[in-house]
Amino acid sequence: MRHFAQELEELNQAVLQMGGFVESSMHCSVQALQERDERLANRIIEDEPRINQMEMDIDSRVTRLLALQQPVARDLRFLTSVLKINGDLERVGDLAVHIARRTLSLIHRPPMKDIGDIPKMAALAEDMLHKSLDAFVKQDAELAESVLPVDAEVNELRDRVFTEVVQVMQTEPDNVPSALDLMFVARHLERTADHSTNIAEDVIFLVRGEDVRHHALR
Amino acid sequence: MRHFAQELEELNQAVLQMGGFVESSMHCSVQALQERDERLANRIIEDEPRINQMEMDIDSRVTRLLALQQPVARDLRFLTSVLKINGDLERVGDLAVHIARRTLSLIHRPPMKDIGDIPKMAALAEDMLHKSLDAFVKQDAELAESVLPVDAEVNELRDRVFTEVVQVMQTEPDNVPSALDLMFVARHLERTADHSTNIAEDVIFLVRGEDVRHHALR
Repeated sequence: MRHFAQELEELNQAVLQMGGFVESSMHCSVQALQERDERLANRIIEDEPRINQMEMDIDSRVTRLLALQQPVARDLRFLTSVLKINGDLERVGDLAVHIARRTLSLIHRPPMKDIGDIPKMAALAEDMLHKSLDAFVKQDAELAESVLPVDAEVNELRDRVFTEVVQVMQTEPDNVPSALDLMFVARHLERTADHSTNIAEDVIFLVRGEDVRHHALR
Repeated sequence: MRHFAQELEELNQAVLQMGGFVESSMHCSVQALQERDERLANRIIEDEPRINQMEMDIDSRVTRLLALQQPVARDLRFLTSVLKINGDLERVGDLAVHIARRTLSLIHRPPMKDIGDIPKMAALAEDMLHKSLDAFVKQDAELAESVLPVDAEVNELRDRVFTEVVQVMQTEPDNVPSALDLMFVARHLERTADHSTNIAEDVIFLVRGEDVRHHALR
């Protein structure tokens, strides 16, 4: 049997690979939305099974290591953190697919004047995801902490998008379906920011052994 | 130190207690919506910290047991399942709070004619949650399996609600904000059904040791 340290390192690599894949899906879904790129949107939808496969593979590796190695302290925190981060990443992959589906629906209708604060929201959410994964790689609790306050900015932008969307709906009945699609995209980006926050909190727990969820920081 | 079997039993009780609390929050949020009951909606929002506290308590018990007891086979599957079910329950608690907030927003505007298929969706989602928790208590994989096909019914109802809502928005601009609130309630109920499906799948994994996620059944 391989050395435990080597198995942990391989698991670490698997999480990074999945993280990179999910980051790319999220980035492409926003790009497909902005450029009305049907092929790109379809590619994201087709790629989803690979993310699901990665999730199941990581889960079963963690379960096996917990069973065979009886890890303690930091190794144990690492394995339970991986279980949670894995679930968050899979959900972000789902959200990228949801955005791609909304994009396809938007492409098949006439374009709206502009998509308001959505690109700004997307940039913040993607940055949170990237930094939280980077904090995981570097085991950097301070970097993870820097992710937490951005969640409030994303929520503010979501409120702005919602206000704009309601106004469009009330004045341009023909644009109701497209406005709804954009509202859901904003919601999916907000959820992406939430999952990135979860990942950042898991990194803080992993490094420092303290649980910062549901606290004032958030 | 107490016996491991006793600790597992206490953990089991803690999950059931949290499950009961979350079920009640979800049920009350739908009741508050239907009866325009502001006090009830506020109570759900005030109760949220208790759910978050239960989640953190269960997580730390699982982590401690994994560290001290080095469980294998079914005990290990039980502990990893509890970690996941715990996360799903906490999310359903959040969704109940989201529904309560939408309810408060709806109460402060004139009532709409009817709220369409939402009570039916709510009944199905609540039933899925209840059965999946019941399957966990009884360790009954067949009962858990019976939950999975209901998810498609909930999705169908959500599509119907969305169609109704778009029509209201296009013909009654004054009702756009209320229609949006209802659409989000439908979305939260759909997500409740998804989390109940996750719990049911975890029960199947726990009892049979097989991973049924992302499969045709779903």
